[in-house]
Amino acid sequence: MSVTVINHYTTDVNHCHHLCYTLSMGRWKPDARARLEKAALALYRERGFGQTTVAEIAERAGLTERTFFRYFTDKREVLFSGADALQQQLVGALDKASRSLLPIDAIGVALESTVGLFERRKEFARKRQAVIAENAELQERERIKLATLASALAEGLRRRGAGDPAASLAAEMGITVFRIAFERWINEKGDRSLATIVRHCLKELKLVAGGAVQ
Amino acid sequence: MSVTVINHYTTDVNHCHHLCYTLSMGRWKPDARARLEKAALALYRERGFGQTTVAEIAERAGLTERTFFRYFTDKREVLFSGADALQQQLVGALDKASRSLLPIDAIGVALESTVGLFERRKEFARKRQAVIAENAELQERERIKLATLASALAEGLRRRGAGDPAASLAAEMGITVFRIAFERWINEKGDRSLATIVRHCLKELKLVAGGAVQ
Repeated sequence: MSVTVINHYTTDVNHCHHLCYTLSMGRWKPDARARLEKAALALYRERGFGQTTVAEIAERAGLTERTFFRYFTDKREVLFSGADALQQQLVGALDKASRSLLPIDAIGVALESTVGLFERRKEFARKRQAVIAENAELQERERIKLATLASALAEGLRRRGAGDPAASLAAEMGITVFRIAFERWINEKGDRSLATIVRHCLKELKLVAGGAVQ
Repeated sequence: MSVTVINHYTTDVNHCHHLCYTLSMGRWKPDARARLEKAALALYRERGFGQTTVAEIAERAGLTERTFFRYFTDKREVLFSGADALQQQLVGALDKASRSLLPIDAIGVALESTVGLFERRKEFARKRQAVIAENAELQERERIKLATLASALAEGLRRRGAGDPAASLAAEMGITVFRIAFERWINEKGDRSLATIVRHCLKELKLVAGGAVQ
């Protein structure tokens, strides 16, 4: 019996190891990404973006450089890896928005559809913005990403039948609304949701642009 | 008599030299600037902005490097020296615009007031745009200048009593309208004036933004 017990025990231990390994792997992957992001942002703020190396980020996260490169192509990518998902979400929502909507309202629907990507990551967004504000190269990168988003939205509006300059204007206004709303959301003390602020800014835009058409 | 004639002649020659020198100095100054700009743009297009030196620009213009630096701080400045004048014109016109105008219409007045700075220099503007389109650093510079203009206009609107985000939104829309109108003016085949296109784009903006306020 003792042998059986021992065998059983051994089996259990192996089983447990296997389970724990599986579980930790399961948790590990998303966790590694989050830990790398957290470590990178902390270092960028402490030392500046330019003075931080990938090796230091990995070390701070308790991971290897190899693991870093499994998630990000370089240290800048930590700050911009969300841009593709954002563009897909925006363009996908615009393509699905009711054809009866005016261009600016279709853009509004697309913008609102993205807030879920940010709401849970407000602290990350806030720290990220602080890092970008201090580095000209990163600001440039951010501007290019926003210009790319505006182009993609304008293209989406053209697919819906909008002409030019209407398509470019509506798309640029949408990105401007989003940028201003995002900055407010990050900086304001209250607890208004990003969705609320985007809606508010879009309404303001309409009021502001509503000078009589001459 | 012959002596008198000769003396007279000599006096005339001296007088003429003096006059010609004065005249040429009078013409020389604006001419040097224009020649440097023309030479720089030609070289930027032939060799690329990065591959052109100040010495080459001066040589092509038939002037010295010292003369170049009397007009421009560096070779990039040839493309952006107009930005300060543009900002002064925009902000000055905004400050003078009737207080009864809505922010977006005051911005419209300011934008239209600047067209004189460009109308006579369409060929320069077109070539300049082609050079900028091919160089990431110059595009970045252009984006920064436009962002600076938007900030200055937003500040001007706040002086007129506009709140936020209305001031930022109206200013950003104004700069977007200007950028899009400017690109159309440079690229379209017809002969519509920049003022006409700015007015048209601003009207389009109002129509585009005019979705029902919910």
